[in-house]
Amino acid sequence: MTNYLGLQIMVELYGCDVQLLDDPVFIEKSMLEAAQLANATVVQQFFHQFSPFGVSGTVVIAESHINIHTWPEHAYAAVDIFTCGESLNARAAIDFLEIKLKAGKVSSQKYLRGDQEVIKRFN
Amino acid sequence: MTNYLGLQIMVELYGCDVQLLDDPVFIEKSMLEAAQLANATVVQQFFHQFSPFGVSGTVVIAESHINIHTWPEHAYAAVDIFTCGESLNARAAIDFLEIKLKAGKVSSQKYLRGDQEVIKRFN
Repeated sequence: MTNYLGLQIMVELYGCDVQLLDDPVFIEKSMLEAAQLANATVVQQFFHQFSPFGVSGTVVIAESHINIHTWPEHAYAAVDIFTCGESLNARAAIDFLEIKLKAGKVSSQKYLRGDQEVIKRFN
Repeated sequence: MTNYLGLQIMVELYGCDVQLLDDPVFIEKSMLEAAQLANATVVQQFFHQFSPFGVSGTVVIAESHINIHTWPEHAYAAVDIFTCGESLNARAAIDFLEIKLKAGKVSSQKYLRGDQEVIKRFN
């Protein structure tokens, strides 16, 4: 990612424990632990429980953010990890969330953000 | 996106006005206006100014979220719009932010979240 400012990893967590997915306290705690395991510097966190179910949360980190949206009705959670440094161990966070949420299947995809070649054209 | 729970649109805004990118009040106001133009239902918003520069913000919407990270030093902003409904007019939000941030170049890419076929296997 040397030619890009950031890396965003989209993580799909399927077949999770539905009760855990609808517990905002558990989700917040798990996301903060995941951020710590990834060596992220937590700046702030915001979690919100939707009615009738579902939790959304963002952990703002010095390296950018870690987001989650849960769909308890589908046993599914969407996580994305946005990092603009080389130091973040995203894999540790993903593996931890897979275990905590008791996911049956996890897939992830990387997406590069901020093409330095394009940025140079405007500087 | 009928076979997916959500759609995430990653937007790259290059060549933006650097002073605007470092103004958390302006960024927050612009993001809230963008959310309104997209017909999103705003639940909460959180913005954070980084030292020495840069702003990160999340607008939690009933339809999921709209995020921004700005790099004033690179005249660049990364936005992503995550929606789980059909009603959101993401294009209106993107076009609005392009104008407000005075972007010289904008590119976007769609990424589908939550494959319903996989979800069914766990239900």
